Amino acid sequence: MISQITLDNIEHLAIGSSFLGTGGGGDPYLGSLLCREAIAEHGPVDILPVGSLTDEDQVFIAAALGAPTVMIEKLFSIEDQHRAVDTLERFLGRKATAIISAEIGGCNSMMPVAYAAMRGLPIVDGDGMGRAFPELQMTSFNIEGVASAPMTIADEHGNSVVFQTTSGPKAEELARPVATAMGASVCMSCYPMTGEQARRAAIPNTLSGAVAIGEAIARHGSSTPPVERLVAVLRGHQYYSDAAVLFQGKITALERDTSKGWVFGSCTISALNGPGQAELKFQNENLVVHVDGKLRCVVPDLATVVDAETGHAIPTERLAYGQRVAVVGCSAPPMLRTARALEVVGPQCFGLAEEYVPIAQLIEDNI
Amino acid sequence: MISQITLDNIEHLAIGSSFLGTGGGGDPYLGSLLCREAIAEHGPVDILPVGSLTDEDQVFIAAALGAPTVMIEKLFSIEDQHRAVDTLERFLGRKATAIISAEIGGCNSMMPVAYAAMRGLPIVDGDGMGRAFPELQMTSFNIEGVASAPMTIADEHGNSVVFQTTSGPKAEELARPVATAMGASVCMSCYPMTGEQARRAAIPNTLSGAVAIGEAIARHGSSTPPVERLVAVLRGHQYYSDAAVLFQGKITALERDTSKGWVFGSCTISALNGPGQAELKFQNENLVVHVDGKLRCVVPDLATVVDAETGHAIPTERLAYGQRVAVVGCSAPPMLRTARALEVVGPQCFGLAEEYVPIAQLIEDNI
Repeated sequence: MISQITLDNIEHLAIGSSFLGTGGGGDPYLGSLLCREAIAEHGPVDILPVGSLTDEDQVFIAAALGAPTVMIEKLFSIEDQHRAVDTLERFLGRKATAIISAEIGGCNSMMPVAYAAMRGLPIVDGDGMGRAFPELQMTSFNIEGVASAPMTIADEHGNSVVFQTTSGPKAEELARPVATAMGASVCMSCYPMTGEQARRAAIPNTLSGAVAIGEAIARHGSSTPPVERLVAVLRGHQYYSDAAVLFQGKITALERDTSKGWVFGSCTISALNGPGQAELKFQNENLVVHVDGKLRCVVPDLATVVDAETGHAIPTERLAYGQRVAVVGCSAPPMLRTARALEVVGPQCFGLAEEYVPIAQLIEDNI
Repeated sequence: MISQITLDNIEHLAIGSSFLGTGGGGDPYLGSLLCREAIAEHGPVDILPVGSLTDEDQVFIAAALGAPTVMIEKLFSIEDQHRAVDTLERFLGRKATAIISAEIGGCNSMMPVAYAAMRGLPIVDGDGMGRAFPELQMTSFNIEGVASAPMTIADEHGNSVVFQTTSGPKAEELARPVATAMGASVCMSCYPMTGEQARRAAIPNTLSGAVAIGEAIARHGSSTPPVERLVAVLRGHQYYSDAAVLFQGKITALERDTSKGWVFGSCTISALNGPGQAELKFQNENLVVHVDGKLRCVVPDLATVVDAETGHAIPTERLAYGQRVAVVGCSAPPMLRTARALEVVGPQCFGLAEEYVPIAQLIEDNI
């Protein structure tokens, strides 16, 4: 198990979390530049296992909120992130002893590391999603009863806002129009937790998991193709082990609509030879995959479009007509698949008609 | 000079502040019920002259934010108001020693009194407008350099939001969509001030002024008609002394549009005999009056539509076709008429084409 995020493994974290972003969470590449800079200046960041948190620890989230299509054009700074966390610390009258990622998938895996480096604090090996989701209340923290509020957001002009709401969906409802008025992309902090709460509510080992996945995809000198290495590392993982290539082909249709602070859309992938076709739907993240009309993966299980050659994930905002891709699916962490969890992150929460069927069963049905 | 707000003069305050509301600020009648209840339970509220504030005093605003058309249907509670002030006190780490009204015109004159009663604190004899205005930054506090942020808003479901912005217009820009998402009517606190700041930036004596105006309108057993009594009390006042009946007639046309959290509109009043006609434009408050095409009063000077018989102000949301009314205009407090003030509350701030001409001059031109 790795014990630090350093200049040597930060790229693995970026590549792995891009896969776990299932198309969303924002491209971690830009965040990895921020991390490099922060680690170069402040030194490596210690990784703290979830189980090592003491009851007295104060665990704060550093995260971005917004539409990924905007995030690639409007960059974040550690100073804006600090204003979000500092405002929350000030509101609560207590100081962070550890930083945690709300969402290991996408760029929200990176800012917490950069920010932990700047603060000289450890980063917790865990997160609230084990992947990426488009809404604030879609977390294991919420599923386990931790309140998302008080929550803070901060923009790049020195403005910050604290939301003290009675429910997660209400925080989402009130924060989204402010984030939109701030330019559809802001820094935030939310779900402030004690160590006791984080031990109970965080999904453990997802940070080190992302690094391991990234390392497998990026490995040099291997004769096994990257997509096969990716599926192999997933199959060996404690959460993502029900894994398979669901489809391979090229992108032949694409729809995207950035509205209300999200990017909604769909993508069609056609087989290179023959008539087969895959259909993906997304709201920031990929939500459901059908192949030739048959359900192959549905949220909360993970489906990511990866480059057929390199195995690198392609976020929804970078999908393009003609790209040669593989769709890789895998199982979500068990904490996201309970009956209670499916009320928060199941297909119905995204307005989908599909019932949740575990990807293990869908893979078996298709063998 | 009165020294307390009691069950005996609370109605005068409601009637006087309704006049100073210039059609906006929300109908104070509902607020006066809340005041009666609070004073009956907690006792009268001491009035503190602006000049008696010490440097160490902590002056907090209690106010409502929203569209008056909504406020008459969605009532406030002192508990919601307390959540707004308490959240701000907690954010700042200091406690109120006195309450002040942001806006003496309309219902924002009443909630601070009810709230001061509940907290057992004095109410400052002054405010930030000397009338009513539709936007948060349109205050003497802002004109004199006091920051509107941090600002808090609270709804009736237990949710509150703190805005820490770098400018007044930004606070307005970010709070308005949240207020709209909360139902277009919320409780708030903003412009937290020390006693030193309030002494410099508040408009003094407007609370006692509103009581005096209300007393004149409501006076029983006088042979002078109410509208004449109103003009007489205004002419004797330190601020409102350039006063006149600008027009009398009946309402013959009315347009109202409640959007973006405000009520916009216009009102036509026609002479009972003959061809004369007055035109009023409003954004929550009355902004400009023309009579037969000639400018007679423009913001920041005050123009209020009053019932021709009773002299009671008619707020924009209660204007109705056929009502017999008088339009009474008067001068704004001098703090609102400086060159610096006109950049914040002058006609151009409301998108009007008219230049500001003091009502004293417009009255003289029409004699």
